[in-house]
Amino acid sequence: MSNWLNVSDHHDFSIHNLPFGVYSNNGVGTPCVAIGDSIIDLKAAAEAGVFDGLGVDASVFDAPILNPFIETGKAMWSAVRSRLQESLRDESSALSASKSSILRDRLTAEMLLPLHVGDYTDFYSSIEHATNVGKMFRDPENALLPNWRHIPVGYHGRASSIVVSGTDIKRPQGQTLPPDAKVPMFGPTKRLDFELEMAFVVGKTTKLGSSISTAEAEDHIFGMTVFNDWSARDIQKWEYVPLGPFLAKNFASTVSPWIVTMEALEPFRCASIKQDPEVLPYLQYEGDHNFDINLQVDLTPENGSASTICKSNFKYMYWNMAQQLAHHTVNGCNVNVGDMMASGTISGHEEDSFGSMLELCWGGKKDIALNNGDTRKFILDGDTITMKAHCENEHFRVGFGEAVGKILPS
Amino acid sequence: MSNWLNVSDHHDFSIHNLPFGVYSNNGVGTPCVAIGDSIIDLKAAAEAGVFDGLGVDASVFDAPILNPFIETGKAMWSAVRSRLQESLRDESSALSASKSSILRDRLTAEMLLPLHVGDYTDFYSSIEHATNVGKMFRDPENALLPNWRHIPVGYHGRASSIVVSGTDIKRPQGQTLPPDAKVPMFGPTKRLDFELEMAFVVGKTTKLGSSISTAEAEDHIFGMTVFNDWSARDIQKWEYVPLGPFLAKNFASTVSPWIVTMEALEPFRCASIKQDPEVLPYLQYEGDHNFDINLQVDLTPENGSASTICKSNFKYMYWNMAQQLAHHTVNGCNVNVGDMMASGTISGHEEDSFGSMLELCWGGKKDIALNNGDTRKFILDGDTITMKAHCENEHFRVGFGEAVGKILPS
Repeated sequence: MSNWLNVSDHHDFSIHNLPFGVYSNNGVGTPCVAIGDSIIDLKAAAEAGVFDGLGVDASVFDAPILNPFIETGKAMWSAVRSRLQESLRDESSALSASKSSILRDRLTAEMLLPLHVGDYTDFYSSIEHATNVGKMFRDPENALLPNWRHIPVGYHGRASSIVVSGTDIKRPQGQTLPPDAKVPMFGPTKRLDFELEMAFVVGKTTKLGSSISTAEAEDHIFGMTVFNDWSARDIQKWEYVPLGPFLAKNFASTVSPWIVTMEALEPFRCASIKQDPEVLPYLQYEGDHNFDINLQVDLTPENGSASTICKSNFKYMYWNMAQQLAHHTVNGCNVNVGDMMASGTISGHEEDSFGSMLELCWGGKKDIALNNGDTRKFILDGDTITMKAHCENEHFRVGFGEAVGKILPS
Repeated sequence: MSNWLNVSDHHDFSIHNLPFGVYSNNGVGTPCVAIGDSIIDLKAAAEAGVFDGLGVDASVFDAPILNPFIETGKAMWSAVRSRLQESLRDESSALSASKSSILRDRLTAEMLLPLHVGDYTDFYSSIEHATNVGKMFRDPENALLPNWRHIPVGYHGRASSIVVSGTDIKRPQGQTLPPDAKVPMFGPTKRLDFELEMAFVVGKTTKLGSSISTAEAEDHIFGMTVFNDWSARDIQKWEYVPLGPFLAKNFASTVSPWIVTMEALEPFRCASIKQDPEVLPYLQYEGDHNFDINLQVDLTPENGSASTICKSNFKYMYWNMAQQLAHHTVNGCNVNVGDMMASGTISGHEEDSFGSMLELCWGGKKDIALNNGDTRKFILDGDTITMKAHCENEHFRVGFGEAVGKILPS
């Protein structure tokens, strides 16, 4: 697919991708789309007539978040994306004619959190991750809890502390119960961890009391992003019984600035692993609902170089997004445009595909080697965690950009 | 405190109260205050000059939610409330002069959810409730979990499904594991319950990475409301390990339409019960941070009369709101104006003071008697649950109104 910007089909932000985000245009959050090393300012594009004839209300691009655009619906997301693809192929397009006022340099742009996230849910849908945690903390012979293969287990997280890639994260303080201690102590977490996740963005609002079937689910999903569910393992261990994780998680979650549409991911659709035992009817589905997305985590020490410490893939997920959304709403729970639903840590079979340091260091028993000869068990002050995701086939590539966060001292 | 509307000092909405809400003014959500059987339309009051000289931006009353008004800060909440008290005492006030355009009939008004709730947190802060649950489901001799006396245990709930009093609630469906079954089944919950709670509304936004001390906490609280945390006990039992309640709770929570300010509650401040063992320094506090608020739950069968099935009091809380907010933010978690934080079920010592049907029927072992000779263990279709709260001393009364919800079939 040639284009007058000469962006390679194997660029993260090829013409086959066109993810949506929000950048700071002199301090004003403005919806945009990534193409190569450029940004298409959607407000400027609308003003230049790029979307003429589509019937899109231009005010949705004059907002500091993507929510109003997402509310226009799936047909309009597709129409806008198609118009941009056509415009990038056609040197006589309105986009080309006004490119000096529409295009920005992506590499120097300040990206903002692109959504108002009303509610955030975190699932626990990787069987390798759940098994690893069960082996370490419960019974190695019965690592999975009895409900795990029947329910896409999930819980509510904190929406207010979701931040965009590049935001520094202060090491959280909290209560922990040291080994062999009888009373808890207070201080900075000693077991700060990441969780490698993907999240999807709800694209269609439902009413309280209504449900979404697995067949309908993907019509309710706008797109996906990379998600780092930062976790303080020592705080989590002491607090989480019986109501689940709270302060161990809600100090921050980092997302990549770009939302890749489900349309762009379509060529990378793949089958899920077979579920055994068979799930209840409301969780059954037809067709393929998983996606082949390569995932990577790098750890970069202060003043050091990046070491890749994990390579995983979204296709390892046991529960797919259609099942997650069907389960979430089967009781009548309503969802809103902009809600984020994260996958839970995505671990693969191999030891270097585990999606958290807790698993990579096996609960503190092993060292994680870095390029410079140093080792880690958990994250130190000054370390930067970078998560990347991309799909690629022989013809082209669709990338997600990065979710980056540096840890500052408490 | 006399007033020209002749509202009794022992009315729920006496001049000593003046709670804030939002009513539907011909379909347009409008901030208002309750006085006796009337509503003061704050937009109309501002237009009539009632708040002249206070420096309040009148646009905060031209919004369908209270959030913009709450963002004006504690000093302004107090100034607006004082001006209304003065105006109600003074027959020559601007409020009196324009009363035909400012006052509405409260008894026929449609009340709306008064807030945009960004995030909702539920605590678990009643020692009697936690002990009762522990006795029923765990070890009667060690009913409290080891962390309970050290941490005001809490978890994140669903903000989107918080609804205003009067909204019908559809019985949720979901997965349960019947006694002695090996595989789960799907269907309407058979153990639908209420949880009698109070919630506070965050009044001041903080930044990610900052904390609120117990001494500062009450400056960050706008007011309180009655909160019914509807719960499906059979769904909860099967799903909640290890990440906490999810579909058992997120199908709906009902709040009363009125937010009673902390200033109105000041005369009812009281001491908490002594905490043993001593809590960590960040949870210690000076002064009294509990409140003497009488609570009541009525169950009304379809076409029947109300039976009071629980009488409790907010003062039974082991952990107070200042401790809850200090704990919630000690790790740097940010909070926003409009966030709701609920207490958890408020049970007292006596069997008729237990704040849930689970406790009142002791896990299904006892019948709860109704006036008409019927009994209940859990809530049936057609039942209406009404929660009420009020403070009262020899001089006056401050009431919260009601949180009412009727259960419809699945």
